[in-house]
Amino acid sequence: MKILIKEVQQNEVITDVLIKDNRFAAIGAGLDGSGAEVLDGRGKAILPSFVNMHTHASMTLMRSYADDLDLHEWLTNYIWPMEAQLDEEDIYHGARLACLEMIKSGTTCFNDMYWHFHGIARAVEEMGMRAMLSSVFIDFNDPAKAREQQELTEKLFDEFRQYPDRIGFALGPHAIYTVSKESLKWVGRFAEENDLPIHIHLSETRKEVDDCLTRYGLRPIQWLEKIGFLGPNVIAAHTIHVTDEEIGILVRNGVKVVHNPASNMKLASGSFPFCKMQSKGVELSLGTDGCSSNNNLSMMEEMKLASLQAKLIHNDPTALPAHTAFEMATVNGAQALGLDCGKIEEGKLADCMLVDLSNHRLVPGYRLEDDMVYSADSSCIDTVICDGRILMQGGYVEGEEAIVTEARTYKKRFQ
Amino acid sequence: MKILIKEVQQNEVITDVLIKDNRFAAIGAGLDGSGAEVLDGRGKAILPSFVNMHTHASMTLMRSYADDLDLHEWLTNYIWPMEAQLDEEDIYHGARLACLEMIKSGTTCFNDMYWHFHGIARAVEEMGMRAMLSSVFIDFNDPAKAREQQELTEKLFDEFRQYPDRIGFALGPHAIYTVSKESLKWVGRFAEENDLPIHIHLSETRKEVDDCLTRYGLRPIQWLEKIGFLGPNVIAAHTIHVTDEEIGILVRNGVKVVHNPASNMKLASGSFPFCKMQSKGVELSLGTDGCSSNNNLSMMEEMKLASLQAKLIHNDPTALPAHTAFEMATVNGAQALGLDCGKIEEGKLADCMLVDLSNHRLVPGYRLEDDMVYSADSSCIDTVICDGRILMQGGYVEGEEAIVTEARTYKKRFQ
Repeated sequence: MKILIKEVQQNEVITDVLIKDNRFAAIGAGLDGSGAEVLDGRGKAILPSFVNMHTHASMTLMRSYADDLDLHEWLTNYIWPMEAQLDEEDIYHGARLACLEMIKSGTTCFNDMYWHFHGIARAVEEMGMRAMLSSVFIDFNDPAKAREQQELTEKLFDEFRQYPDRIGFALGPHAIYTVSKESLKWVGRFAEENDLPIHIHLSETRKEVDDCLTRYGLRPIQWLEKIGFLGPNVIAAHTIHVTDEEIGILVRNGVKVVHNPASNMKLASGSFPFCKMQSKGVELSLGTDGCSSNNNLSMMEEMKLASLQAKLIHNDPTALPAHTAFEMATVNGAQALGLDCGKIEEGKLADCMLVDLSNHRLVPGYRLEDDMVYSADSSCIDTVICDGRILMQGGYVEGEEAIVTEARTYKKRFQ
Repeated sequence: MKILIKEVQQNEVITDVLIKDNRFAAIGAGLDGSGAEVLDGRGKAILPSFVNMHTHASMTLMRSYADDLDLHEWLTNYIWPMEAQLDEEDIYHGARLACLEMIKSGTTCFNDMYWHFHGIARAVEEMGMRAMLSSVFIDFNDPAKAREQQELTEKLFDEFRQYPDRIGFALGPHAIYTVSKESLKWVGRFAEENDLPIHIHLSETRKEVDDCLTRYGLRPIQWLEKIGFLGPNVIAAHTIHVTDEEIGILVRNGVKVVHNPASNMKLASGSFPFCKMQSKGVELSLGTDGCSSNNNLSMMEEMKLASLQAKLIHNDPTALPAHTAFEMATVNGAQALGLDCGKIEEGKLADCMLVDLSNHRLVPGYRLEDDMVYSADSSCIDTVICDGRILMQGGYVEGEEAIVTEARTYKKRFQ
């Protein structure tokens, strides 16, 4: 399968881009497109599409279900009771809505953690996206529950190979306060034996840190290093409440950190110490978290929030400039997942978007990256391609009406 | 002229909305629409449109021209040199682009301050919006300049009556560090004599406060009260660096305060003390500021940023809930400008928008206000009506292509 994008703008130059199978085969003027589906790139720019590095995709079903609440009330009275009522079919519909929303806002890959693995995997397969999926692992220090979760993990790892290789498998120990030390060690071993990433919430709240100090006399990152859990395959979300020493531990172990500015602000979790993290060399990417704490999956909003928050908390208008935000939202995430995408270069996986340069949010058009970070919204995105396949064209995703119709039924069910 | 919106959702109820001339004439099921232009409201909800309470609209021409810079470098090397090259015709084109962007994101009214009054007024008149326009008044303590600015103000006040009554006239003394004490007093008198609002930047940066303390031994708000400047006609933008006593002064004088979260964060101006302001009863609304410090004019982004910033800085996830943000972005702004709009009620000015409830960002749809504040973007807005006239339908604004084409020429001119 071939796609030829004719006369598209890349880095201020008009060029052609040829995609063969799932990779960029050639970039240059006047390419031969025989046998290719030709896309008219005139008036559009090609950019790498976004990699959303921390999601609970199916929580789209909880969008605006419970906002502006104290964390405990939010979880115990709203989120957990609703989650208890959702089965694999619900999760599938929620994930379809999430995929639709991500595609519409230029995201082609996400790093997810949620229940009902197959519900999500099926949605990702059908929607044509790329994803790293992990099943949430929670045992609440109960050995029976731990065994059950281990068996489920082994079973899912066997089964996930039925999906296309756009879908990767990761381990998803929820957090240090919901998973026992023994299970964390088991997860670490299983990941090492099978060369898998680990996706975990880490140092998200002050309570998590205080409880860890009380229990082990160590802060979360110190403790995880001590038990041998940390390594370059660990993707840690949030990671707000960290000392300089802990940042050093993250760097030493090659841990990948995902910044979630909207969620951290909405839940009042705390301020992410971006400048410290960056200056010490932590590998940083961006994620939206789930729709119950955001309430959308827009990486454009997330880039802007990351940059504005860094400027505010560091009292420095030069902190986290647009280019850095754009890299965090694209190539940094791809690298953290070990994926050969996130840049428009010959040989790379063909994940990209075409933005409409005549959209009013992108004019006059002095700096496209700045416009994408500080001004754009989903209306600027015309075409989205993932793994060499067109997922959206002219702002339209095939089958979108049915996805929305199904998702709207949850209003009646839960209101 | 009559418009009948049939079977539209308002507060979860399906109803008809009849607009006669420029006001909502009737709201209820089964209204008679004889002689009216009929809009199909099915699958849509009617909401008040946004009032953007602090803009420099024509700075759309500087969108993404200079980002991530130190304030001094930003102003002296980029913003001021470009401003010096812009004439009334340029300002007209910039304001047209701003109006287009505001209409597309559901805003029908804005409170502006910029050079070349007629360039902006002409754009607003043509685009059908409502606006309160002020010409920037700056004298840098130069008496000759002061006289010139006073004469210009008097001249513009005479001339502005040529525009439709959607356009109001305000005085725009830039700030206490750019306008002399004598001129501020003159502005105050002129406003009182002619019953006009005053639009001013106030306590935006720490430097402004420090300089005022050095010069007068008083903080800006203390000093403005002392010289008799403050009153219920004063609309103060930013107003970040304030003490409890100063908040008391604002309340006592009925000063209207405009929160500009994106700009305050992007320029690292500081954190707006929302909870203190609110608990003491300051009248609060929202504004985007200009596109050089935002970089867009989206009141949806501004609502989300205001809420998230308040939650973060007050360490409280219940701070600035969605309903409050929505009121700040609509009716509060209308009230501050003395306008009878901002609510969908019989007798009110017919300024409103229809949002598409089948947009993926608004599903499942548990709480529309929460969705508008935390999830929506411009793609959710289908129709915009201002002063009883349809400005956008099906997401399309008449003549939008020409506005964009003209604005794109500035890229070549300034890059």
